[in-house]
Amino acid sequence: MTSQKSDTAMSPKITVELLRQLRQGMRNCKYFSEPIQAYIVPSGDAHQSEYIAPCDCRREFICGFNGSAGTAIVTEQYAAMWTDGRYFLQASQQMDNNWTLMKMGLKETPSQEDWLISILPENSRVGVDPWIIAADQWKNMSRALTSAGHSLVAVQDNLIDVVWMDRPERPSTQLRNLGLEYTGLSWQDKITALRAKMTKRKVSWFVATALDEIAWLFNLRGADIEYNPVFFAYAIVGMNTIRLFVDLKRLADPALRDHLQLDSPCKPDMSIRTYPYESVYAELQAVCAAHSPKDKVWICDKASCALTQVIPKAHRTPIPYTPLCLAKAVKNATEIQGMKKAHIKDATALCELFAWLEKEIPKGIVTEISAADKAEELRSQQKDFVGLSFPTISSVGPNGAIIHYRPLPETNRTLSLNEVYLIDSGAQYVDGTTDVTRTMHFGTPSAYEKECFTYVLKGHIAVSAAVFPNGTKGHLLDSFARAALWESGLDYLHGTGHGVGCFLNVHEGPCGISYKTFADEPLEAGMIVSDEPGYYEDGSFGIRIENVVLVVPAMPKYNYRNRGSLTFEPLTLVPIQVKMMNTELLTQKERDWVNEYHKMCREVVGAEMERQGRKEGLEWLIRETQPIV
Amino acid sequence: MTSQKSDTAMSPKITVELLRQLRQGMRNCKYFSEPIQAYIVPSGDAHQSEYIAPCDCRREFICGFNGSAGTAIVTEQYAAMWTDGRYFLQASQQMDNNWTLMKMGLKETPSQEDWLISILPENSRVGVDPWIIAADQWKNMSRALTSAGHSLVAVQDNLIDVVWMDRPERPSTQLRNLGLEYTGLSWQDKITALRAKMTKRKVSWFVATALDEIAWLFNLRGADIEYNPVFFAYAIVGMNTIRLFVDLKRLADPALRDHLQLDSPCKPDMSIRTYPYESVYAELQAVCAAHSPKDKVWICDKASCALTQVIPKAHRTPIPYTPLCLAKAVKNATEIQGMKKAHIKDATALCELFAWLEKEIPKGIVTEISAADKAEELRSQQKDFVGLSFPTISSVGPNGAIIHYRPLPETNRTLSLNEVYLIDSGAQYVDGTTDVTRTMHFGTPSAYEKECFTYVLKGHIAVSAAVFPNGTKGHLLDSFARAALWESGLDYLHGTGHGVGCFLNVHEGPCGISYKTFADEPLEAGMIVSDEPGYYEDGSFGIRIENVVLVVPAMPKYNYRNRGSLTFEPLTLVPIQVKMMNTELLTQKERDWVNEYHKMCREVVGAEMERQGRKEGLEWLIRETQPIV
Repeated sequence: MTSQKSDTAMSPKITVELLRQLRQGMRNCKYFSEPIQAYIVPSGDAHQSEYIAPCDCRREFICGFNGSAGTAIVTEQYAAMWTDGRYFLQASQQMDNNWTLMKMGLKETPSQEDWLISILPENSRVGVDPWIIAADQWKNMSRALTSAGHSLVAVQDNLIDVVWMDRPERPSTQLRNLGLEYTGLSWQDKITALRAKMTKRKVSWFVATALDEIAWLFNLRGADIEYNPVFFAYAIVGMNTIRLFVDLKRLADPALRDHLQLDSPCKPDMSIRTYPYESVYAELQAVCAAHSPKDKVWICDKASCALTQVIPKAHRTPIPYTPLCLAKAVKNATEIQGMKKAHIKDATALCELFAWLEKEIPKGIVTEISAADKAEELRSQQKDFVGLSFPTISSVGPNGAIIHYRPLPETNRTLSLNEVYLIDSGAQYVDGTTDVTRTMHFGTPSAYEKECFTYVLKGHIAVSAAVFPNGTKGHLLDSFARAALWESGLDYLHGTGHGVGCFLNVHEGPCGISYKTFADEPLEAGMIVSDEPGYYEDGSFGIRIENVVLVVPAMPKYNYRNRGSLTFEPLTLVPIQVKMMNTELLTQKERDWVNEYHKMCREVVGAEMERQGRKEGLEWLIRETQPIV
Repeated sequence: MTSQKSDTAMSPKITVELLRQLRQGMRNCKYFSEPIQAYIVPSGDAHQSEYIAPCDCRREFICGFNGSAGTAIVTEQYAAMWTDGRYFLQASQQMDNNWTLMKMGLKETPSQEDWLISILPENSRVGVDPWIIAADQWKNMSRALTSAGHSLVAVQDNLIDVVWMDRPERPSTQLRNLGLEYTGLSWQDKITALRAKMTKRKVSWFVATALDEIAWLFNLRGADIEYNPVFFAYAIVGMNTIRLFVDLKRLADPALRDHLQLDSPCKPDMSIRTYPYESVYAELQAVCAAHSPKDKVWICDKASCALTQVIPKAHRTPIPYTPLCLAKAVKNATEIQGMKKAHIKDATALCELFAWLEKEIPKGIVTEISAADKAEELRSQQKDFVGLSFPTISSVGPNGAIIHYRPLPETNRTLSLNEVYLIDSGAQYVDGTTDVTRTMHFGTPSAYEKECFTYVLKGHIAVSAAVFPNGTKGHLLDSFARAALWESGLDYLHGTGHGVGCFLNVHEGPCGISYKTFADEPLEAGMIVSDEPGYYEDGSFGIRIENVVLVVPAMPKYNYRNRGSLTFEPLTLVPIQVKMMNTELLTQKERDWVNEYHKMCREVVGAEMERQGRKEGLEWLIRETQPIV
């Protein structure tokens, strides 16, 4: 899945009264010493999560727009909302005319800073909730405002929450502990490895704020955020102490208490002290106050401004990504085994789905939504299924060209023999996370559709089969995915791949494959990323071919300076529709790759389908994996 | 040519007495209010030039090491010099044991900041000449020292110059004015374009400090720095004024005065006021003092700290590269025509050289040095030849594996029928600058040499023939040059291409093709870069195939979102030795490219050779451009 999100209602939210109340709050000295002239409402939660819980959808609440990316700013006179090209249409439909849509990426659109500076009266105070703005964003915004004579003010009470009467509760779902058979490494071993890195870098404290990092560290999973098996928590790890901040009610289960050794820790330095979720601020303050000013504290520069600023500047060592983020990205043998199993189960469900679609589409009753539902139903029949890993993108014809499309009743299209069908879907299993896109035609694709599909396939293969030196960053592989499209004047406007968690977030850092080069750590064996080039013809069709692939050592003929080489092994094992290929455009090497890949699908997934007695899917699989010549 | 430089003597310089005198200077309150505990000696000149004049070789003077990159730091007790992997051997040979070689890039090597902090007594003062440290470097160093309780101090008198008795004069060579037939654009038009950009960005002043930018702006050339046709100068351009700072003696020539309209300017805002080179500091101070604090001043963040700090912080708008840098990079039709002509002349000389080498090598008397001299002699016979554009890299066998090799009497090897020969050379002509590398074998290359050569060639072709969208940055093409090598486990440890000036510096920004992504502006039609992948087998041979290529519009089948596409057109037209190719490893497309390229060499350069009556070269050219099958 590419990094996008969309949803639901397309009629504008009426915000007159809400804005009146918010502006009242901005003038109300109960919340600050002096009124503020502008209030910024970012998208995120206090953990800078990509997906957020309903209680954190404050920007959506105030303006109506519910895409994944956007920032609202309200002043006495204006209300404006910045989002990017993926969402211009959706945002314009979801916001009423109290709001100005700021189209990011267009030359005429001012940045938030420039806009604020251009409209604010002199010496204005701009407020923001310091918990939901990242420290690096705060820094940039504050610097820009200060240089123009204004100031950025941390408003402790969230002014949206004040006017949000029916705001949902923060979720506190049941926690699940994962044994060594899934994690391969106990949380104690993970703590020990973390402390070794801290010692090496002379760091005394590490503050964990990203929810997937905390879930990974303690081998726990929750369901607080849809699609992401995480739970709201913080952790502070010192050389001899471990503090976990979480709704304490969640820790009543004896199995959990035993897992965390809460009642009888083996070693004092592995004793977890638990605190209420909300007390992280005070406790971090106490930690910093109690220790030498020479003690360095590691915190991610994307952590909240509130928590970052608790740490005195001299102690603070902001890092673009944490040691947990990197450790989590490199999967161990057990995790890799789990990911492989999850992908075989997932492929079984998808082969079954495609066989079913082939049979049902001619009847004219399968829609984008019912196809997505069927996919979920088939996946849910697989062992250790937990839920989807993101909302299924099930799109027919022109809907396929909307990269972040999600079928809604009002857009729902019927699958037919005449249009290209793109399905980008994935699931969470206890042993792993999947994410796969296949583009199919159930009738006869046009020569142009086949041509474009073949370029995308060439790009997919170029990445998947690439051999590259150890230490190569993913962005250096991005152009391989585009070369065939570029040669014909085509391209796609998203990255080529993202990191994938193991029964964790389907998008994770710090590696990926993109023309964007920030926060891009070198690929190493054990990392898992997606390989998903595409092509989108507005108003007609969309094509994307996505596998999740594992970074593995390669053994080319030579070994320059003993650096070693890497390549990818596909974990996704679902046939790529040969009917969509113009095989004449493929080189012999590419044809060999397709045949080799299909042979693997047939052998590995075929065995599982046989075991599960899924005859129709198996027949489909065998037919779709015939070698091409 | 890749970005490297090396030179001459390999026996250590004796520095005992010099260090004693320098340390005396560090304690001498004549130069500052309090003694300093450390003194930093960077490599650069006051213009942050890549190549520097003899009077600016201060780091070389104090430590003996004369590579292009290195920083010396002297404290009361220690003397240390940081350089990178290209120069470890050379530096260790050129420095005596008063110096510690700091090998950059190795994990155990501390940064300059960390080293200083680890050895300095508390509250130390570290001095540096603010003219030869770039503003961005000053900032980083100052921040690090301050956070550890020390301070970075600008020492106005250069302490090396104080002890350097026979320091050469600053060069003041004759200036040459270039007419429209070479530049395509008058300096007045360039000023107008610059001012338009200033107006657009609301900038009132622009300070030009890079020597090639000043030469380009005023359509003047000098010879103050070897290989680079530049002259020592500064310029300050306002909306109505132009200030040029240069040794005034150089402006006596009536033709020059006329070119610059010094005596009778047409329009007042195009009137150049001239000032002595040294008065730039005082004059910039006066400009800033006389104007509104709202006036913004553009200066490159790589300009000297001294000049940058003259501008009050509120006025200062540092930019990673200047509008002149970008304007200069995009060549106009006249410049492109000139570059083409220069490359045809250059190819003529090289074909003649290779024909000569073929004849002379069997006699056993051609050496790396004599071959380089012959190349220079043949080039100097071409019209409008000015000089070389960098020191010729002429290298046989194992010397070819030293990327920055330059033949010296003690390393000089004889060309033979048994070893690979690599020559990387170029020249300055009044109409353009060249830079070309060819790798040849005059006997029978081994299968392995051919295999490696063919991978390099595949990389060269992959870049040269790449089609990519408008707006693509060069770093996205770097992997194309490496893919064939990577597939066999090979690689090369330098970038793939650099910008090339037009009768200006052979290395220029802001575009290039490299895995390094900093300061990399999108490629656009009219830019000129090199395409020079390589492979180096330590102790055996070196391979590099380098053409200078022009970015041109491409016309692929489709035109996604009307973005337009680009590709490259080779300006260098020198045959690539077929004998070195394993043509079986080439695809049909690659073979077609080679044949097409050789056809162009034969037609275009052949005609010129015929015109010049260079029969032997022409015969060689015709033989070497036979199509492969």
